[in-house]
Amino acid sequence: MFEVAVIGAGRIGRIHARNVAAHPALHLKAIVDPVGDSAAELAKALGSEVSTFEAVLADPKVKGVIIASPTDQHLTQTLQCIAAGKAVLCEKPLDQDLETARGAAAQLGGDKPLLLGFNRRFDRHFGALKQQLEAGRIGALESLLIVSHDPAPPPVSYVKVSGGLFKDMAIHDFDMARFILGEEIVEVYAAAACLVDPAIGEAGDVDTAKTTLKTASGRLCVISNSRRSGYGYDQRLEAYGQKGLLKADNVLESTVAHWGAEGPVLDAFQNFFLDRYAEAYRSEIAHFADIVAGKAKPMVGYDDAVRALELAEAAAYSVATGQVVRV
Amino acid sequence: MFEVAVIGAGRIGRIHARNVAAHPALHLKAIVDPVGDSAAELAKALGSEVSTFEAVLADPKVKGVIIASPTDQHLTQTLQCIAAGKAVLCEKPLDQDLETARGAAAQLGGDKPLLLGFNRRFDRHFGALKQQLEAGRIGALESLLIVSHDPAPPPVSYVKVSGGLFKDMAIHDFDMARFILGEEIVEVYAAAACLVDPAIGEAGDVDTAKTTLKTASGRLCVISNSRRSGYGYDQRLEAYGQKGLLKADNVLESTVAHWGAEGPVLDAFQNFFLDRYAEAYRSEIAHFADIVAGKAKPMVGYDDAVRALELAEAAAYSVATGQVVRV
Amino acid sequence: MFEVAVIGAGRIGRIHARNVAAHPALHLKAIVDPVGDSAAELAKALGSEVSTFEAVLADPKVKGVIIASPTDQHLTQTLQCIAAGKAVLCEKPLDQDLETARGAAAQLGGDKPLLLGFNRRFDRHFGALKQQLEAGRIGALESLLIVSHDPAPPPVSYVKVSGGLFKDMAIHDFDMARFILGEEIVEVYAAAACLVDPAIGEAGDVDTAKTTLKTASGRLCVISNSRRSGYGYDQRLEAYGQKGLLKADNVLESTVAHWGAEGPVLDAFQNFFLDRYAEAYRSEIAHFADIVAGKAKPMVGYDDAVRALELAEAAAYSVATGQVVRV
Amino acid sequence: MFEVAVIGAGRIGRIHARNVAAHPALHLKAIVDPVGDSAAELAKALGSEVSTFEAVLADPKVKGVIIASPTDQHLTQTLQCIAAGKAVLCEKPLDQDLETARGAAAQLGGDKPLLLGFNRRFDRHFGALKQQLEAGRIGALESLLIVSHDPAPPPVSYVKVSGGLFKDMAIHDFDMARFILGEEIVEVYAAAACLVDPAIGEAGDVDTAKTTLKTASGRLCVISNSRRSGYGYDQRLEAYGQKGLLKADNVLESTVAHWGAEGPVLDAFQNFFLDRYAEAYRSEIAHFADIVAGKAKPMVGYDDAVRALELAEAAAYSVATGQVVRV
Repeated sequence: MFEVAVIGAGRIGRIHARNVAAHPALHLKAIVDPVGDSAAELAKALGSEVSTFEAVLADPKVKGVIIASPTDQHLTQTLQCIAAGKAVLCEKPLDQDLETARGAAAQLGGDKPLLLGFNRRFDRHFGALKQQLEAGRIGALESLLIVSHDPAPPPVSYVKVSGGLFKDMAIHDFDMARFILGEEIVEVYAAAACLVDPAIGEAGDVDTAKTTLKTASGRLCVISNSRRSGYGYDQRLEAYGQKGLLKADNVLESTVAHWGAEGPVLDAFQNFFLDRYAEAYRSEIAHFADIVAGKAKPMVGYDDAVRALELAEAAAYSVATGQVVRV
Repeated sequence: MFEVAVIGAGRIGRIHARNVAAHPALHLKAIVDPVGDSAAELAKALGSEVSTFEAVLADPKVKGVIIASPTDQHLTQTLQCIAAGKAVLCEKPLDQDLETARGAAAQLGGDKPLLLGFNRRFDRHFGALKQQLEAGRIGALESLLIVSHDPAPPPVSYVKVSGGLFKDMAIHDFDMARFILGEEIVEVYAAAACLVDPAIGEAGDVDTAKTTLKTASGRLCVISNSRRSGYGYDQRLEAYGQKGLLKADNVLESTVAHWGAEGPVLDAFQNFFLDRYAEAYRSEIAHFADIVAGKAKPMVGYDDAVRALELAEAAAYSVATGQVVRV
Repeated sequence: MFEVAVIGAGRIGRIHARNVAAHPALHLKAIVDPVGDSAAELAKALGSEVSTFEAVLADPKVKGVIIASPTDQHLTQTLQCIAAGKAVLCEKPLDQDLETARGAAAQLGGDKPLLLGFNRRFDRHFGALKQQLEAGRIGALESLLIVSHDPAPPPVSYVKVSGGLFKDMAIHDFDMARFILGEEIVEVYAAAACLVDPAIGEAGDVDTAKTTLKTASGRLCVISNSRRSGYGYDQRLEAYGQKGLLKADNVLESTVAHWGAEGPVLDAFQNFFLDRYAEAYRSEIAHFADIVAGKAKPMVGYDDAVRALELAEAAAYSVATGQVVRV
Repeated sequence: MFEVAVIGAGRIGRIHARNVAAHPALHLKAIVDPVGDSAAELAKALGSEVSTFEAVLADPKVKGVIIASPTDQHLTQTLQCIAAGKAVLCEKPLDQDLETARGAAAQLGGDKPLLLGFNRRFDRHFGALKQQLEAGRIGALESLLIVSHDPAPPPVSYVKVSGGLFKDMAIHDFDMARFILGEEIVEVYAAAACLVDPAIGEAGDVDTAKTTLKTASGRLCVISNSRRSGYGYDQRLEAYGQKGLLKADNVLESTVAHWGAEGPVLDAFQNFFLDRYAEAYRSEIAHFADIVAGKAKPMVGYDDAVRALELAEAAAYSVATGQVVRV
């Protein structure tokens, strides 16, 4: 059993804490959250303890730290934990500022035990697509379509501090594009608009975007983003290759269908990312357990975080200038 | 071009007349209907003429006759036309009375050019299933499920003269069972009830039935019948074999789907048998054209009509007695 | 935390033990299995202890017992545990012999804390169908279709001691029929054959069956059983009602589809009952935890076990005699 | 009955000729094709006559002319027929050269009876989507995805004279984008590559493209084009709106599915545009019959042809320069 601490008892911290507690090889040593009683409540429910970030850092028994604190603390805490010899799972983004993130290359790059929380990499459906792709089922991959529409827009107060559509939301898709394409992007074009909620536009952001990526070898990728689908979590992939297409579709709440006067109706799509990715979060913790145990290298780390951030900045710049951007 | 006459200008007669008029090898010579102006209107729309059954019989140029008259005239008219040397397409049922139908064996059996109007044999979807079955895709067939639910019950006035659920509606399914199983039935059990409309029960009929058929070699078939689906024409097959399943599903109005707050909704199922089987009726006429031209033998004829009627009587007898019936 | 013991460290006992260990309100106190090292291995992996049935019975701290021993010990052990005041989760069947099972009515009937292991009652998909049915989405239920085909037949050695297709396999479907119909069955007819494996026939059993059930109010249910589907676990429901149909379909491994020269291919159906029902087994343990805690009454208990057994015997008798059987 | 002549007895001319012959309000007066016996064979099969373009022009009884000649004759013949007072159905493109096409505005613009052969406008599935969109099912339309992948690339000899991917193939999609968006495009960006067949690249063309369109009001559209899908005709739409999504999917050969060891397999997608759009071509002729009869105005005419050509040129220019193009 390896001791693990969780920094942050918010929505995502609670998910990770529960999954750590349920993992047979991990023990949830401590929960840290300076705000209110959230750490105490969570610790009680899971039979763990409340602690401080300093105490966690100083405790040699704690082998792994999960950083689910506010975004502006991600990089600093990650640097401290890695320096202290601990394995780290850091929620995305590593930092909102590309230059700041790039500045940590010496400390976080290479083979450091740093796992970035790009949860979709651990999704069963996207993983199955990747596996079939690598097994050659469609021959050489030629192009890729990523649909990534959220159920409903976040509050404008969140939008204002989110870093914008590309850094906050599409960053998952930039990482997914690199994951599936298996090649770096050299060109970015994004067309975007504010069509969902005028308040998002007033806050200086866009809510709808179509981004085109091109790789050095000429492969193409289109990402469709919207802050509001109206029908739940819409997260799909279509990979087009020499011998056909592989697609990963949305996940339904159940296999139940109703056939009635209004036509055949399927059960709803999963509507909340914690439902849609519940299994992916468990798999992510299982992978982190292997990293803590020294049995695996992070499947997505510092370099991936920086690359995704570069693409997000390029897309935002493309929108701002109306030009194609070389990366 | 072969001359063809249509007897009966009702709903189904009009369909056949239009398909004859559009077929490149057939010419719609005459339409016969003693009631009102229906024959005249149809003849005008299709550039044909009104005639009488006697004139059609006597006209040596008329090579084919389509009998879409009231049910009680089917057998007599068929006998006369076959005796007059014409090819016949007779709507189902040949006759509502099994003994009467059996009595025509000498005149209608064997290789007479008599095609029975079991339209579903010409359906593209059921045909594709049959073709894949014969191509060995699921190995030996073991059992079969037929779902056959009408969109809505007919008026009780019709139910009273229909011959009952089994002779009127399930007769198509008995023919389909024989078509797919490729083997005769030896045992019939039917459980039935009046659940859709009490007036149907008061008229002495049932509206819901589950019929089990067994062949000599032990293959099993279940037919599910209902006079009302509530969601359109529900006509499906599932064939279970050694190496898997083949299924034919309902036909949607279009491929359009709506994803909204109420979940993903597909376009409606085709709701009317003239839509659902429009293409099958065209294929039936194309087959009849080949019979008229002497290029094909009827794929479903007198023997099939009698066999389906036998199964319908056996099912009704099973419901009446609560017993399994050997055929 | 409530102490729970698991009797039997075989395939299903291991599942239950793991789910108990992962449940926040239960503690896996002991594992009992007289054969070999299986109990010891399981106890080690889950941080539990090996014990004996007698010790478990005598330990007042053990509040719940999960009986996953060989079938012939189910009833005796259940009687002893209930008598000792413990809550029990007993795997199905309670007993293979109907009269023996009936004989325990005084000890096990009524409001005893006895949960029968009909795992499908806890399946998300069937549960969603039941919920929509009760919410009135299709109005009054009229008839039901249950497809229940196993991926591949068990070894003949198992078939010989299984109690036969109806008691071993279809018993789940009899329980499901009662669960969905919400009404008792009064009439059973089963047509069956040995079409999958002649060795099953030589062992005196059938491997393919179509069973028709009728309720007092005239509702109809058909169950299709086969020991081999050829395409994975085929467990589907179709409920037909006044205002349409509700169906629960098979579960796919993932949402990934491949479109290639051979047509569109979906990912495989889940092929193993421990995958297909993994989540249902977790929900079953969660329900058992509530029973142990006195917070819930068993949603499926002694009476349900006896009723399902009655239907299994009636179906077997119907096959043996070729007659409809009143229950 | 209105007299109609067909110019060109090639693949598409034959389709139109047959549909004219089968239409109750049209009479196929003449077929024109200077090459070989094709006109004679077609005329014989359909009971029509062979003629010359000059004779057709001079015949006042011919009210409608269908121009299915080689592309370089489309515009000249259309101009002559319109000048002669005939209704015209001209196959796309009106001309490969944008300036030439623009030059005919005085003669062909406005309310001339000129129908352009954008067959997809008459497709049942796309039409149903448009209808639901206009009925407000998803509220205001925000963005659109068009997938348009051909089954297999044409011969390079054809590619060389085709006008290129955008004018030859994507032109249908530019028209579809305008049809669905209901608004003009102001900005075009296309990323393209030669990934399917190097010979296409050597011929100076691309075979894979992702084109982004932007309207004045900020709506976005992405078109995915490939000369080869590997799985049949891939023609899909996804329209994203305020209240959800409307999608039109590919058309399967039948509803038959096979469930076997390799997973569930659907029947193939329709693989040939004459199958996929057989019904659309019939509807197109029905619309043309109404135009000939003076009962309808062309739903797609000269202006649409010019607009689609402008977008095709803009997309090609975007690929050539790597820049976003304002239209």
